[in-house]
Formats: sequence, structure tokens, C-alpha cells
Amino acid sequence: MDFAYDARTEELRERLLAFMDEHVLPAEEVAGEQRASLDSPWQTPPVVEELKATARQLGLWNLFFVDEHSFVDEHSFVDEHSFVDEHSASGEKHGAGLTNLQYAPLAEITGRSPQLAPTALNCAAPDTGNMELLAQFGSAEQRERWLEPLLAGEIRSAFAMTEPEVASSDATNIATRIRRDGEGGYVISGRKWYISGAMNPDCKVFIVMGKTDPDGEDVRRQQSMVLVPRDTPGVEVRRAMSVYGYEDHYHGGHAEVLFHDVRVPAANLIGEEGGGFAIAQARLGPGRIHHCMRLIGMAERAIELMCRRAVERSAFGKPLARQGVVHEWIADARVQVEQLRLLVLKTAWLMDTVGNRGAHTEIQAIKIATPRAVVRIIDDAVQLHGAGGVSQDFPLAELWAAARTLRLADGPDEVHQRSLARRELKRYL
Amino acid sequence: MDFAYDARTEELRERLLAFMDEHVLPAEEVAGEQRASLDSPWQTPPVVEELKATARQLGLWNLFFVDEHSFVDEHSFVDEHSFVDEHSASGEKHGAGLTNLQYAPLAEITGRSPQLAPTALNCAAPDTGNMELLAQFGSAEQRERWLEPLLAGEIRSAFAMTEPEVASSDATNIATRIRRDGEGGYVISGRKWYISGAMNPDCKVFIVMGKTDPDGEDVRRQQSMVLVPRDTPGVEVRRAMSVYGYEDHYHGGHAEVLFHDVRVPAANLIGEEGGGFAIAQARLGPGRIHHCMRLIGMAERAIELMCRRAVERSAFGKPLARQGVVHEWIADARVQVEQLRLLVLKTAWLMDTVGNRGAHTEIQAIKIATPRAVVRIIDDAVQLHGAGGVSQDFPLAELWAAARTLRLADGPDEVHQRSLARRELKRYL
Amino acid sequence: MDFAYDARTEELRERLLAFMDEHVLPAEEVAGEQRASLDSPWQTPPVVEELKATARQLGLWNLFFVDEHSFVDEHSFVDEHSFVDEHSASGEKHGAGLTNLQYAPLAEITGRSPQLAPTALNCAAPDTGNMELLAQFGSAEQRERWLEPLLAGEIRSAFAMTEPEVASSDATNIATRIRRDGEGGYVISGRKWYISGAMNPDCKVFIVMGKTDPDGEDVRRQQSMVLVPRDTPGVEVRRAMSVYGYEDHYHGGHAEVLFHDVRVPAANLIGEEGGGFAIAQARLGPGRIHHCMRLIGMAERAIELMCRRAVERSAFGKPLARQGVVHEWIADARVQVEQLRLLVLKTAWLMDTVGNRGAHTEIQAIKIATPRAVVRIIDDAVQLHGAGGVSQDFPLAELWAAARTLRLADGPDEVHQRSLARRELKRYL
Amino acid sequence: MDFAYDARTEELRERLLAFMDEHVLPAEEVAGEQRASLDSPWQTPPVVEELKATARQLGLWNLFFVDEHSFVDEHSFVDEHSFVDEHSASGEKHGAGLTNLQYAPLAEITGRSPQLAPTALNCAAPDTGNMELLAQFGSAEQRERWLEPLLAGEIRSAFAMTEPEVASSDATNIATRIRRDGEGGYVISGRKWYISGAMNPDCKVFIVMGKTDPDGEDVRRQQSMVLVPRDTPGVEVRRAMSVYGYEDHYHGGHAEVLFHDVRVPAANLIGEEGGGFAIAQARLGPGRIHHCMRLIGMAERAIELMCRRAVERSAFGKPLARQGVVHEWIADARVQVEQLRLLVLKTAWLMDTVGNRGAHTEIQAIKIATPRAVVRIIDDAVQLHGAGGVSQDFPLAELWAAARTLRLADGPDEVHQRSLARRELKRYL
Repeated sequence: MDFAYDARTEELRERLLAFMDEHVLPAEEVAGEQRASLDSPWQTPPVVEELKATARQLGLWNLFFVDEHSFVDEHSFVDEHSFVDEHSASGEKHGAGLTNLQYAPLAEITGRSPQLAPTALNCAAPDTGNMELLAQFGSAEQRERWLEPLLAGEIRSAFAMTEPEVASSDATNIATRIRRDGEGGYVISGRKWYISGAMNPDCKVFIVMGKTDPDGEDVRRQQSMVLVPRDTPGVEVRRAMSVYGYEDHYHGGHAEVLFHDVRVPAANLIGEEGGGFAIAQARLGPGRIHHCMRLIGMAERAIELMCRRAVERSAFGKPLARQGVVHEWIADARVQVEQLRLLVLKTAWLMDTVGNRGAHTEIQAIKIATPRAVVRIIDDAVQLHGAGGVSQDFPLAELWAAARTLRLADGPDEVHQRSLARRELKRYL
Repeated sequence: MDFAYDARTEELRERLLAFMDEHVLPAEEVAGEQRASLDSPWQTPPVVEELKATARQLGLWNLFFVDEHSFVDEHSFVDEHSFVDEHSASGEKHGAGLTNLQYAPLAEITGRSPQLAPTALNCAAPDTGNMELLAQFGSAEQRERWLEPLLAGEIRSAFAMTEPEVASSDATNIATRIRRDGEGGYVISGRKWYISGAMNPDCKVFIVMGKTDPDGEDVRRQQSMVLVPRDTPGVEVRRAMSVYGYEDHYHGGHAEVLFHDVRVPAANLIGEEGGGFAIAQARLGPGRIHHCMRLIGMAERAIELMCRRAVERSAFGKPLARQGVVHEWIADARVQVEQLRLLVLKTAWLMDTVGNRGAHTEIQAIKIATPRAVVRIIDDAVQLHGAGGVSQDFPLAELWAAARTLRLADGPDEVHQRSLARRELKRYL
Repeated sequence: MDFAYDARTEELRERLLAFMDEHVLPAEEVAGEQRASLDSPWQTPPVVEELKATARQLGLWNLFFVDEHSFVDEHSFVDEHSFVDEHSASGEKHGAGLTNLQYAPLAEITGRSPQLAPTALNCAAPDTGNMELLAQFGSAEQRERWLEPLLAGEIRSAFAMTEPEVASSDATNIATRIRRDGEGGYVISGRKWYISGAMNPDCKVFIVMGKTDPDGEDVRRQQSMVLVPRDTPGVEVRRAMSVYGYEDHYHGGHAEVLFHDVRVPAANLIGEEGGGFAIAQARLGPGRIHHCMRLIGMAERAIELMCRRAVERSAFGKPLARQGVVHEWIADARVQVEQLRLLVLKTAWLMDTVGNRGAHTEIQAIKIATPRAVVRIIDDAVQLHGAGGVSQDFPLAELWAAARTLRLADGPDEVHQRSLARRELKRYL
Repeated sequence: MDFAYDARTEELRERLLAFMDEHVLPAEEVAGEQRASLDSPWQTPPVVEELKATARQLGLWNLFFVDEHSFVDEHSFVDEHSFVDEHSASGEKHGAGLTNLQYAPLAEITGRSPQLAPTALNCAAPDTGNMELLAQFGSAEQRERWLEPLLAGEIRSAFAMTEPEVASSDATNIATRIRRDGEGGYVISGRKWYISGAMNPDCKVFIVMGKTDPDGEDVRRQQSMVLVPRDTPGVEVRRAMSVYGYEDHYHGGHAEVLFHDVRVPAANLIGEEGGGFAIAQARLGPGRIHHCMRLIGMAERAIELMCRRAVERSAFGKPLARQGVVHEWIADARVQVEQLRLLVLKTAWLMDTVGNRGAHTEIQAIKIATPRAVVRIIDDAVQLHGAGGVSQDFPLAELWAAARTLRLADGPDEVHQRSLARRELKRYL
């Protein structure tokens, strides 16, 4: 249980912090200006492509990606010769080869500019989860066609799971159908929403979760995942869903997407039929770490803004920095962040040492604890900034909306509280 | 201390509820469609003008407006013969002549559609406060030029007080300067923001708060208010300020407005020089009642949406309506709303019977209690709606942003807590 | 919905406030000293008898008691000629004849000295509820034997309902058995706890709730109530239950009481067999008002202590009264208390005008809202008092324990939240 | 930053857990019975002496004690040849030689029976802090006379710092005077309260903090500490202070102690004149770790009780273990405890590696976070237990009172929030 940042992590942190200061933060304003003259507000502004090139040069590319995947035991349907091994043979590596514990502190840093930094490093959701998924469960052909360009930062991707008509926390509810057609392919029909990244025209492929066997006895074997290229006939990216008034242009927005009898070849199935639920579960763990560490980075930014404001502003003849309520906010924020970071680092360390399954309780614990605490911290920071806090002149309101949404994404708090509590209670039954 | 709704209130409530159901709620979608084809998203959509005409016919016009104003004792600089008296003589009345206690339950009802209903009834902020202000403190000429068309719903107005560089809760901080020029007029220079309604081109006049005597000994006599027509040279409506990503188009947005050496004749001064602070104080009371009752209406809508969702949706094989956490949210919401409504009604009753001053503690209490509680209620409703809750498909996220902002408007919670506590402590000194 | 205190209430409030200042508060120390030399710490100290005599002289006796009871329609098993009518005929009245709305503000005042004041006025729980119950549902003989001396303050009584083995919020759970024996009497066996007042030797009678028909189809008709004199063979008052370390000597403690095959004559049945549940329900309403108003009085005392401490103490060179966090505590306390009082008064008014049933939601709302808020207020007051706050030198810690316990008495918050929410949801089913 | 429990810690944990199960928990009832027949309720019951003997045999004695003390640089007035070195020479060790990180998990275990376990292991406050203080700052004579019998468990001791008249969080406020008398001794006069352990007659010595130089320029050099044997004339142990009705008999209570011109020889001064403040600061760090880890043990006990109750009890036909609100309580408790434990372990590790000073923020953070969170957890557990929760039949109410008091001991939360926030803000000044 050693969470200290090792030499490699420290070195990467320094390099990344310098990259943030020298390249990412100055690019925020440029990106805003460039976006105004793009055809679509969801297009990637040119400055982001420059950031990507620089990150690559600096060795800050695909930091999240683990080249070696060895979950063969757990998921027997995975190819025996995995994508990575082949490449390892040739000496080619795509990722930085970091453990979760090494990557987590870097994810935190990107949280200080959640709009641009993750994309600049090719470490943005949902592509990260999709790349891991393809590396683990994709066929050689799927990896060549989709994983390679994703790792190269040439295209983006989306993960089409959430549906408007059912409680998304319960994957067994999924209503989208994936039917075999006569010619050995699949026909997909369904309605998805909050498909992140899908408004960006660079998003070339959807990983779609649906039911191949809706009446199957085992409710966890009814689902499958298929790859659907964006330009397949019948795919309709209908509209952008907003998040508290924000459309999250830099993240490629969140789309409502309809699949009207969309046909794909059988080779687009990921893994095997009935394997969708297991793949979705496997996809979750690292993503939670990333989200939570970025949230911590967001909280750190809120604390910094709160402190700067408090020393600059006065009210009733006294700097805010000397007012008791402000002390309470800042102290509580610092105390919370210290606790959250340790819990997330422990979770990362557990995932590295005992795997997703052994870290089950902790993965759930960080999902429950982090968004809620960070929402509170940013809200206090908003309050300290007055009208400015809710405006576009400070990043706080938008950070708040992002953090708040994470109390719902991947299932609301209450679902995770229920599940964690049931595990705790089991010991006494 | 009788808060029961009297016969007139009950009759108006019924009429207003019918108007909401038959006209306002169906107009919400129409307004959205019309707005898409307007020159500016802040223009008033035609359907709103229709609603206004209907409201007028139905006797639901200017419900907030009290024709008789008799604050002459408190504010010696008010014309002896007030605007209203003249008209009373001719039998013409502009308002419904309701007490605060009678109007409050009607304001609550408009809170169910805060985007359209207040405007439809010519009862929208900041025009309401501006009309009251002009009726009480405006000269005959000012009333004729500005109050008449405002009461007729022909133009809109803005109240330009908040400034980005100073804590807005402390009016003695105001940095905008109002200088006498050689020819007996005034020159205004300053920067204001979050000037609500100012993005709407129908907003034809600003009531600007600034300092005529910044070095005056009495810090509460340094400020004055002047009327500035929108088309006066030097007035720059620079940009829309957003509120958690929302631009509040129907409210006419919230503008940043610059006054670059703007010249107005001396007759545009409201009341007397040095009277700005007192006028601002007098303006506050009724506005707080309106805001708080609309907030309660918003909370009622959130509770209704929460209940409807809870009976429609299931998770883990059980309707949400049978889950303990949902019971907690709904019960707490109901219990809170009942308490808040009583407190606001008591405050309205106090204002009617002993005036703003006697209701000082209560006016502050509702300002502290209502936004905070309603923010919490709407947040629970968002949580119950999952991704839909943060989206544009339900009104909840936007209602939340509006409610959250009211924890800052007119001074943050903390300023009012401080002031109320000091009054409580004074008894023991 | 007029909550104003009428002339009679105002007059009684003044008289009661004077009685508190002149008699009750000075008696607190005397009572403490006298208790030290009594045979049992639960005995009534002589000074309390003096207070009772004075209260009687001053017309502050049995203020809670409503002489006229007319619930005959609702409870068909009630004697047609009620106790009160007989006496009314003779012109003799036992109570003050106050409405709930008139009595509520008086109950609040007694909350400032919850140890002595209610007993001094013969308005202490559980006797109040027991007296009302006997007046409504008791036979002429029962009223003569038990109600008369209770109204005269000569004896005390207990209400034996709560059991250690079952969730007390659900009366259908009651395990105590009441069996008919061969000779037309009843035999009671069961175990009760937290039987308030039962440690005081003056407590001469128990009203015991148990099941006469445990297998009856209608779960609300299985229970009956019987009167059990304390000296009946088989009654064992086993031990005092403590409440956060307090034994509540002045309240007569909270006893664990065992009924070992206790025999009573059939005439000791209250009302009819199977009527226990309905009687228990009828008993609740007014008690809730009393408890909540006393809680508000306790909160007022906590606010006063908080303010006094804040102006007297300094920390880090500044009086506590000028520290932001203290402002927050005091303001929030005041804002809460104003809301709670209005809600309780409305509930009292509803009970007076539409009866218990029409006030169902409000009775539940005050039960949910009041103890929770008052616990929080007193806790802040403890915090402000440092070590003194948790000690016997201030009444705060003991007030806190009493308030905290009321989040459990008569069913925990969660049960009432559930029930209130279900009623709210019903509208949408 | 490696928090894993090493082999020694694991081995001691197992031994201690076995000792708890086999000896301490069964002794709880015995101790209660024995106490009833002691002369004074604060006397140590015989069974505790037996536990002490067993703990000693099992090598579970003085686990907290660090034999090597090397703070000579920081505190130049410490004897060059320390107590421990002398004994080390002879090979005699008194403590287990554990680091803070090794001892912390053991302290957590004792939190499960906070009444008996710490005393059984000779690891109870305030003796632990006093022994460390004497080891570091005591003269050879002082160590021989007081430290030796304390380490042997033959006597107890008290730390007399808190005063009723001043805010105890600010040591510069201390009013007790320590005057030099003509003959080279000291005369102490002052009033102290909440002197833990002092009601137990085994408590043979007080370490008294007072001012030797009340007008000294440096407010942190005005204080000194002296040893005062209990039987010195002028020492009056006046009364026991209660904590929410509890008198904490097993802890030796909390006394109010008066020093009426108490004379002690000059050799009773600890360290040097003016060194009191520095010694008090040095004493704090490890104590905070111990308190916080015991609190975590208390929280674990509350969680266990909550779970056991939830699986055993039903309400409304459903086990509590299947109710949503209960899931929320249990999940939140688990998530909190995991975070708190990591933060305390990190603090222990920091103290071991960089010393008290480097761990300043963390020591404050655990002081702010732990009691508050544990109070909340135990309160939920009380709620789940209904009336039983506030009674003497479960340990919850008493655990709650102990935890609540720790939000005040060593300074209230607000003082630590203020200090931590100021350090955070300093970076931006």
C-alpha cells in the first residue's frame, strides 16, 4: 500500500505541469476564438491539433494506455494472441506503460483544464475506455481499423450505452435490439442519448450496446456490443443534449443518436454474443479512476481560485481572506481533497495489485465520494465569486456542471450506495 | 397574522391557474419554435405578445402594482401629489390594487413557468421593481415617459446596479460615477454587469445607480439614480453574461453594459441627489416577496415532476416511488415548502401592516431560507431524473440555475446571515 | 388561517412569563438541592408541589385541557354521555378551555424550563395525553378514579406502549398479550420500556397497550388498552432507562416495566376490545403540538444562550459575536425557528378547525421538521460553549439529549417521511 | 508513503484482537458489576488490574511508548543524556518501540472498547501524553519519581490545562498563575476543569500549565509546566464534570480542580521557565493520532452494530437491511471510514518521517475531519436502533458523547479550520 509517487511519475508530473503552463492554459483563449469561425461548434479547433503534436513530441501521449493486457482468465472469449503481444514483439509500444497508480496523478493535473488537456494528451473519455476495450476484446481486424487510428489521435469514438427510456444504472434494462439478419450480419435499432463526443464530426465509430438475446435466461448474457461506423446508413445523430445549459463543445458534445435498422457485418461484433455486460463491467474500473482524479484536479483549481479571490476582494472593510465562513470553506475543501486523493490512489494501487475485482468496494467508494464532495467544493467557490461565479468569466460554473453530472453518469450515487451497503451487510447475514 | 387567501385572491388564483393551463404552458413550445427564427434570440417572440393581450383581457395584468403609494413620510423628497392620485381622480387604475399578501400566492403560480408567465402578466422583474420605483419616486414627467409605457407593457426596462469590480452586496462600494456637467445635466461613466433584461431590444431605459458624491461624509448619501435611455450615445450593451451556461433569453438575458461618458439631462435624476441608496432599499422589499414566491412555485413544479417520475420509473424491479431515499426527498421537499410559504406569507402580511421596516428581519429571513432550500429540492429532483435531469428535456436544470443564482443576487446568503445575526445579538449587548 | 395570538393568549402568556421568572427559574436550583436528600431521585421535590399550588392560584393550571370532547362520531364506542358534559352541567370546569392555537404559545414558554415548568402547570407528558384519553374514551368510573386525581395533580400516570423487541413505530407489532381470563377479567403479560414517568412513585397507574386478538383479520383491531394500577401484583418496574447518560429524574425517568400475568377486572378496559389502535391514534395529535412547541422554546433558550456567550467571550482577540461562523449559526437558528413556529401554529389552527384528520400532513410535517432542526440549533450552541456546552453547568447538553430523543419517540423520522411521501405520491397514481 | 501494515503490526494486531475477544470484551460486564460495590465509582475495578497483568504478559504493554527520544535539537533545554539512553544501556526497554504508523492500527482496535482497552494496555489518555512529555522533557529525578510508576501502570496522572473562564483553544489565555516564592519553590493558584482522569484516586500527579511570566513580551514564553502531587496541600478536586450526562467513570472522570496557593519545590518545574507552550505543542501530535484512530475504531463498532441491527429487525414487513435509507447510512459510513483511516495513517507516516512540524496540516486535517464524521456515523447508528440507541443497553449513545466531545477537546473545529485555511491562503499572499 505504497502511494508515493515514484521517480517516473514525478518526472512525468513535472513535464506535464510545464506543458499545461506553457501550452494548454494559453491555448484556452485561442481555442475559444478559433471555434467562433468553425463550421460547427463541435469541430476540433486547429490549436488542439497543435497541442496534440506537441504532447506527442514531449512523450505525453497515450499516458493512460497499458500495452500489456492479460485478462485472459477472466474473459475466456478474448483472443489468445492479443493485439499488444504482437506489437510488443516488434518492439512497438503505443502507451506509456504506466500503472494506474502512476497515471492517476497525471490525470489529476489534466483536471485543471478539463476542456483541452485530456484531448491534447489523447487521454480523453470516452476514447480512453474504448481503446482499452478494443485492446482487450477487439479482434485483430477491429484493432487495426479502429484502435490504431484512435491511438494515433486521428479519429475519435463514442460509447453508445445510455438510453432515455430506461434507468441507465441497470444495464439489464437496455432496450436497443441487435438482431442477426439473414446474411450473417446484425441489424441495430434503438435510441441512445448522452452519447459523449458524438457531435464532433471526427467521431467516426460508435461502440453500441444492445440486446442480442432479450429473452435469455441469464440477464447478464442478453447484451452484446457491436462497432457501428458513423457513416453507416440509418445512423442519425439527432441533436446535442445539454448539461445545465452547456453543450460541451470541446468534448464533442453529448448526442442523441438513433439507430434505424442499421446493418453491420458480423465481424463488427466485439468479443462474443452475450458478452456485452461483462465487457461493460471491465471497461468501468480505470475510467472511474480517471474521472475521480480529474475531479480532484478540478477541486484543486476551485480551491486556488477561492484563495486568490479571497485575498483580492474585500467586503465590509475586511478582505474575504479574513472572514470566518471563508476559512471554513477553504479548510473543509482542503481536508476533503486530501482524503479523496488518498482513497483514489489506494484504489489505483489495488487495481494494479489485485485487479478490478479486488478493488470493487473502493471503485464504488470513490464513485460515491468524489463527485459529491467536489460539487460542494466548487459550489462554495462559486458562492465566493458572487455573480462572477455563475458566469462565463470564471471556469467555476462549468466545472460545477461537469462535476454534478458525474453524480449521475455510470449510475446515480444511490445505486452505488445500495450496492456497497449490500456487500457490507452480507458479512452479517 | 391572518394568512388565509381571501375571496379576491382565491378568485384570481383560479383565473390565473386556468390561464396557465390554457395559454401559458401550451405557449412554451411555440415560443421556442418562434425564437429560432427571430433576428435575435433575446427578442420577444410573437406568442408572448398574444399572451399579454389575453392576460389583459382576463384582468390578469399588472397584478403586482399598487396604485396607492403613501411613503411620503419616510421619503420626504417624493412629490406631494403622486402619480397615482392624479389618475385615481380620473378613476383610472393601472394595477390590481392587491396587497402583498394577496399578490404573493399569484406570484407563486407564475413560478411554475418562470420563463413566460411573469412577462405575460406584465409582472416580470426587473420591470416590477422599476415601475414601483417610478411610481413612488419618479417625477410627473418621468412617470409619463417611462412608467406609462411600462405599465402598458409596451417597453421593458433594466436596473443597472451590480458591478463586476466590487462586492455587490455593499451598495456603498459602487464605482460608477455620475458627475454634473456644466450645462446642468449628468455624465455617467462606469461598468455594470448582470443587468437583467438588457439584451432584449425592447428594453428602452436603464435606471442607473452611481455616485454623485463619492467623498460625501455619509456613505449612504453618496449615491444617486438616473434614467438613461438605451439609445443615449455612450451606452454600450457589450455582451450577454451567462448563468451556468444559460443565457435566459426570455428574461432578456443579463448584459454587461458600459457607460462611456453618457450624458443625460438633469431631469433624468430620480428623486434627489444622494437619494440613491434609500431608493434602492425601498425597492427591495416587494421584490424579495416576488422572488421567493416564484421560487416556491418552482419548488412545487420540481416536487410534481419528482412524483410523476417516481411513479413512472422503475429500477431494480421496483418503482422509484417505493424506494426509501425517494420518500426522504419528497417528504423533505414538502415539509420545507410548507414552512417557506408560511414565512413568506407572514412577511407579505407584515409589509402590508407595518411596512418594510417592521418586516426587516423577515425580509432577510426569506432571502436566506428560500433560495437555499429550493436549490436543494430541485437538485434532488434532478438526481431522480438521471441524465434527463441535467438536460433540456426537463425544466429542472434551468430552474436549478435560476434558483442557485438567487443565493447571490441582492447579496450572497452570508451577508444577510451576518446582518440578521447582528440584529439578534444587539439585544444582548 | 389566522395565527395571531388573541387577547386571552396574550394575557396568559404574560402571566406565564412572570410565573417562569418569579417562580420556576429560581426553583431550578432549589429542586436540585432538595433532590439530593430525597429517598429516591425520582421523587417529586417539595418545591415542585409549591410551584403547583402557585400555578393553580394564578390560573395556570391544566391549560392544555379541553373540557368539551365531541369525537363521538369518529369513535362510535365512546359513551354517549361524556364525562365533561356531566360536569359542565354542574358548571365545573377542569381545564382552561383553550384551543390548540391558544395553548401552543404557552407550551413554547414552558420549553424554556422543560424540567419543571410543565409539571408545575400540570401540563406534563405523558399525563396530558392520558388525561385527554380518559376524558374522551374512559368510562364514568375510570374517569372518577383516575382522571379526577390526575386533573387535581394528586397522582401521575404512564403510557405503556413501547416495547424493546419490536419497531415501536408500527403499533401492529405490539407483542404484549391481554387475555380474557375465566372470571371476566384480563391477564396482561409483556415487556415494555421507555415508559416515561414510571420511576416516580407518584405514578399510580399505567395505560397498557396490548393485543387482545393477535390473530384478528384487521391488524388495526387487534389491540386494546387497559388501566393497570401500579400496585397490582405482577407489575415489575425493573430499572431506569437512560437517555444519553441522563435519567430524567424530574420527568419521573423512563422505566423498563414487566407485566407478569397481571390480572385486572374487565372494567379496566378503556373503550372497547379492539379499540386500542384507534385510541392511540387519537392521542397523538395534540401531543405532537405540545412537544414541538416545547422544542421551539428549547431552541429559543439555546439561541439566547448562544447570543449571551457570543457577546461575553473572545477568542483570538475578537468577541465571538463578531465572528462569521457564529453569525451563520445564529442567523440560521433564527430563520429556522421562525419557520417552525409558523408551521406548528398552522397545524394547531388546522386541528382546531378541521380536526386531527384534516391536519394529518401537517402533524407529520412538524414531527419531521422540528426535532431535527432544534437538535442542530442546540448542537451549534454546545459548540459555541466549548467544554461548558457538554457539561452540567449549562442546560444545553441535556436539552440536546431531550431533543435528539424526539427524533425517535412516536416513530423515527424515516417512518414519518415515508408516510408523508406516500400521501404526496398518491395524487399522481 | 507506504501505509501497508508491516509484519510486526500484523502480528500485534492479531494478538491484540485475540486479547480483545478473550479478555477485554468479557470484562466489560464484570467491571460494571464490580464498580457497583466499590467505595467510589471512579476507582479502578479489580478486573482491570487483571487485564493489565494479562496484557503485560502478552507483550501488549506500553505499545504507544517510543523509548528513543531525540528532539534535543528542537528543544535545547532537554537534558543531554536522556532517560531512555541510560536504560537502553542496561538493555531495559519500556515501550514496544513502534512507529506511529505501526501503533495507529492498534489504537484503532482499542477504540472498539474505549472504556477498558486503552487502560488495560497502559495506553490511555492522558497518561500516554504525560509519559511522552516526561520522557522528553522531564529531569532524571522527575522521570524516576513519576515516569517509572506510570510506565509500570502503578499510578495514573492528569494534565491540567483547560480553564473554565477562557477559550481553551488559545493557550496564551491561560489564567492560572505560577509564582516563584522566596525559598526557590513555586506557588500555584488557579482553577482548571475537565481534567480527565483526576477523579480516580490512583491519579497521583498533575502536570499543571500556568503563567510564570504573564506580562512577558513573547506570549508563547509566558507559560510553564510544573508537577503537582495530588496530596499537596491546597489541591482541591472539587467535582466531576459530566459529558452529556455521562461521568466517564472508567476514564477516571473529568474533574474541576482548584489550586489554592499550592506550593511545590523548584525541582517540580518541567524543562525551563517559559517552556510550557512549546512542551504543550510537542505533546499534541501523537495524541491526535491516537484519538483519531480510536474514533475510527468506534466508527467501525457503530457500523457493525448498524449492520447487525439491520439484518435482525424488520419494519413494515421488510428487514431494515433492505431499506434504501439504511443503505445510504451504511455506504456513507464505510466510504467515510476508508477515507479517514488513510488520512490518519498518512499523518502517522509523516510524523515518523518528517516530524510533527512537517505533518502540521495533516495533524490539523484529521482533527477537523475525524470527530465530525464519526459523530455523524454514530448518530445514524443511534437512529437505526430506535429507543435502544439512546439507552445504556447499546454502547452507541455513550460513544456518541465521547466522539462529540472531541469536536471541542484541544480546541473546537472552527479554530483548526481557521488555522488550516490561513496556511492555505498564505501561498497566495
